[in-house]
Amino acid sequence: MIAHAPDPVLAHLRDDRDGFIDRLKQLVAIPSVSTDSAYLQAMEDARALLMRRLRDAGMEAIQQLDAGGHPAIYGHWLGATDAPTFIVYGHYDVQPPDPTDRWDSPAFEPVIRDGRLYGRGVSDDKGPFSIALETLFAFLSVEDRLPVNVRILLEGEEEIGSATLPGLLSEHRDLLMADAVISADGARWRTDLASINTGSRGSLRGEIALTTAAKDLHSGRFGGAVRNALHELAGLLATLHRPDGQIAVEGFYDDVTPLDERERHRLAAIPFDEADFLSSIGGSAHGEPGYSTLERLWYRPTIEINGLWGGYTGEGSKGVTPHEAFAKLIMRLAPGQSGEQVNRVLEAHLRRHCPQGAALDIKLEESGSAAYTVPAAHPLLTATEQAIETALGQPPTHVRTGSTLPLSDIVKQVSGLDTVMLSFSTADEDFHAPNEFFRLSAIDEGCCAWVSLLRTLGDHDRARYAPFKPSS
Amino acid sequence: MIAHAPDPVLAHLRDDRDGFIDRLKQLVAIPSVSTDSAYLQAMEDARALLMRRLRDAGMEAIQQLDAGGHPAIYGHWLGATDAPTFIVYGHYDVQPPDPTDRWDSPAFEPVIRDGRLYGRGVSDDKGPFSIALETLFAFLSVEDRLPVNVRILLEGEEEIGSATLPGLLSEHRDLLMADAVISADGARWRTDLASINTGSRGSLRGEIALTTAAKDLHSGRFGGAVRNALHELAGLLATLHRPDGQIAVEGFYDDVTPLDERERHRLAAIPFDEADFLSSIGGSAHGEPGYSTLERLWYRPTIEINGLWGGYTGEGSKGVTPHEAFAKLIMRLAPGQSGEQVNRVLEAHLRRHCPQGAALDIKLEESGSAAYTVPAAHPLLTATEQAIETALGQPPTHVRTGSTLPLSDIVKQVSGLDTVMLSFSTADEDFHAPNEFFRLSAIDEGCCAWVSLLRTLGDHDRARYAPFKPSS
Repeated sequence: MIAHAPDPVLAHLRDDRDGFIDRLKQLVAIPSVSTDSAYLQAMEDARALLMRRLRDAGMEAIQQLDAGGHPAIYGHWLGATDAPTFIVYGHYDVQPPDPTDRWDSPAFEPVIRDGRLYGRGVSDDKGPFSIALETLFAFLSVEDRLPVNVRILLEGEEEIGSATLPGLLSEHRDLLMADAVISADGARWRTDLASINTGSRGSLRGEIALTTAAKDLHSGRFGGAVRNALHELAGLLATLHRPDGQIAVEGFYDDVTPLDERERHRLAAIPFDEADFLSSIGGSAHGEPGYSTLERLWYRPTIEINGLWGGYTGEGSKGVTPHEAFAKLIMRLAPGQSGEQVNRVLEAHLRRHCPQGAALDIKLEESGSAAYTVPAAHPLLTATEQAIETALGQPPTHVRTGSTLPLSDIVKQVSGLDTVMLSFSTADEDFHAPNEFFRLSAIDEGCCAWVSLLRTLGDHDRARYAPFKPSS
Repeated sequence: MIAHAPDPVLAHLRDDRDGFIDRLKQLVAIPSVSTDSAYLQAMEDARALLMRRLRDAGMEAIQQLDAGGHPAIYGHWLGATDAPTFIVYGHYDVQPPDPTDRWDSPAFEPVIRDGRLYGRGVSDDKGPFSIALETLFAFLSVEDRLPVNVRILLEGEEEIGSATLPGLLSEHRDLLMADAVISADGARWRTDLASINTGSRGSLRGEIALTTAAKDLHSGRFGGAVRNALHELAGLLATLHRPDGQIAVEGFYDDVTPLDERERHRLAAIPFDEADFLSSIGGSAHGEPGYSTLERLWYRPTIEINGLWGGYTGEGSKGVTPHEAFAKLIMRLAPGQSGEQVNRVLEAHLRRHCPQGAALDIKLEESGSAAYTVPAAHPLLTATEQAIETALGQPPTHVRTGSTLPLSDIVKQVSGLDTVMLSFSTADEDFHAPNEFFRLSAIDEGCCAWVSLLRTLGDHDRARYAPFKPSS
């Protein structure tokens, strides 16, 4: 390319920006909620639309990869002889829209306000993976080829813990032979600081049901002489943390990799306005004592109740002593922790603190996803840093995310590959909450970075990836 | 009457038993749920049906008494010169049918199985007040008169704390001039022991909302560094009781009338199989230390959560750190306690234990209903004891109920009248729970007792009631 002349692929993307937005809206309008079987048809609709787009763009071997859950979508372009091969990852499933009455506009009727596109899933992950796909499609359209070999993998179960992803990756090892993974999921930290995610916390989900009698009882006839399931569950959940925020489950922190002093100093030097961070969400700082907010979010584990219910929750009141109470849990795992160990200590804690006369039914994910860290010297990491600097004019700060990208842990376990996140959503875009949005400016930044990254990777020798792959 | 010859009114009732059951079914089929505005039409339908029945029976001055809530139904027969006047009370509103999926047959499609009529409200209070009404109607049909003057009052807000009943009684003092109140609400304790209720606990309802941030947050992006509303509410609710079951709210027990030793001995002598009581509900004993189960139920107060919710409660999971959590409370007040004092100490406790950084919205009923005790020498109490002995062949044991009959407290406050409960529902009939039922044998026992009671009261001199009424 002639210096300073616009990249023809990028120029093509810029010319077709309205088309990009229209296609993204069409995708966001499909309520592909993976956690609720009421949305099964929408999941199928989303897959059909995306497969059609891959086909129209000239991708090959387009198919659904099914391991018993919501199928993933696969398609590849493998015409770059001698260039390395990358799995480009995104997920087409979205979080439930609840509470629907808190949305300013309907969750599945995408609409632009003030340079932001609103709708469930637009930021997590339909917008970000559309940037990746549209960039690949633009290369194929303008240059009739890609700079590298690409295997596209769009998952359908990211929002529910990627339960069948390990099986799916194992079954289709041939389709997923690659040198590394580029994830279009895993949001940017902030808009005011160029950053690159080098790791994520893991996650583990569970559900508890506590029962104190065979049926709901009249609170006048029985109240005060028998156990109330809501009180017992509240009491049990209150034992999970000390008042100062530390997790009180014995052994829970045992396997957590301690934070080294160099990293603590590096984190402390990152410009971060905690007061602003908290006031933006109307919350106050609270967490494990002895750690800063960034340390808590990036390196320390959590146990959180994410759903709680029992008794009469309708209008008015009901004179009942409830006999059942339910809680959903989500844990974020720190580097070093395994889901199996956390399950073991959590279940032991709950059983130890469950009062006599109450029955406890505990359902925990078998192992969840472990935390993940990309090796510091990985060639894909270096190339991605360069691409971000090209797009944003600023070298990115190394950060982590407190969220979970199950893919990175699973793909490491199953095929030994490393994952680098290149997503252009931002952490403040209310994904998993009402009024999720995606900044339209991210489309420009994202396309620029992806074009730059793919060109850089096209110059990479495959041998550079060998030290980071298992010798097979 | 000739000794041993059947009472002609009772004979009439026995002959028309099938008609009684049909009319009761018709009434139970109307979903007159007072707590939920979705049932407003059904409330109106229930009133229309009952007013038509009063009119057809020959009652007079039939009207709705409206004090801004669900109207009560009124009708009287005042042709018994010199005989005393009684308010006969029942309530036509019922509890919500939730959880509807736990009913073996639909809540509002009454059906007979094994000598029991199943349906919401059949035992509380449509069956019991139908016994009173049908007995009165039978007197009018057979003898063209009643033994005493009767003012019928059928309330529409008993299940929601009788909020407008005080205003209604005050506004219509003229319509409610009487010597005492006979309540067809207030269930019998057991089927194997003849008993009479001499008092009830009071009640007070409330709702708490706890907020920790302006919106729900992504549990990965924020979890571990900010407060989670569900944890904070669980922790707050856990402070209400000590692990041994004692209420930990400072000052909560201050005004409770202590149990005297004579009454404790009397209670201990009442045949009561606690193991059977508990196994019948699949629960275990738990409550204030130092008190027996009967003492806990009849003389000691409670604080109970009867509804709890927050976060994601649908199918699957959602990676959210909830910012709001809600609880409904119902308290049962012991003799001596006032709603105002309980409100004061409860609110102080909740505010004192609410963590910094969480906002608490507390809504408590203004005063609720106080506990009630009928004077031991009241002539209506003695007459009712005789009527129960006549119907059941056993002198009734004096018992109390842990439930609340708001009427008895309110009517005492407003007009100074005492209330005696004569209900033929039984405490095990799952009112306020799925599969509420009413024993059909109660119809025979109840009609016998009501016929006997009305004849006895017809012989009472009005002057006997003067010592128990305020000098106006």
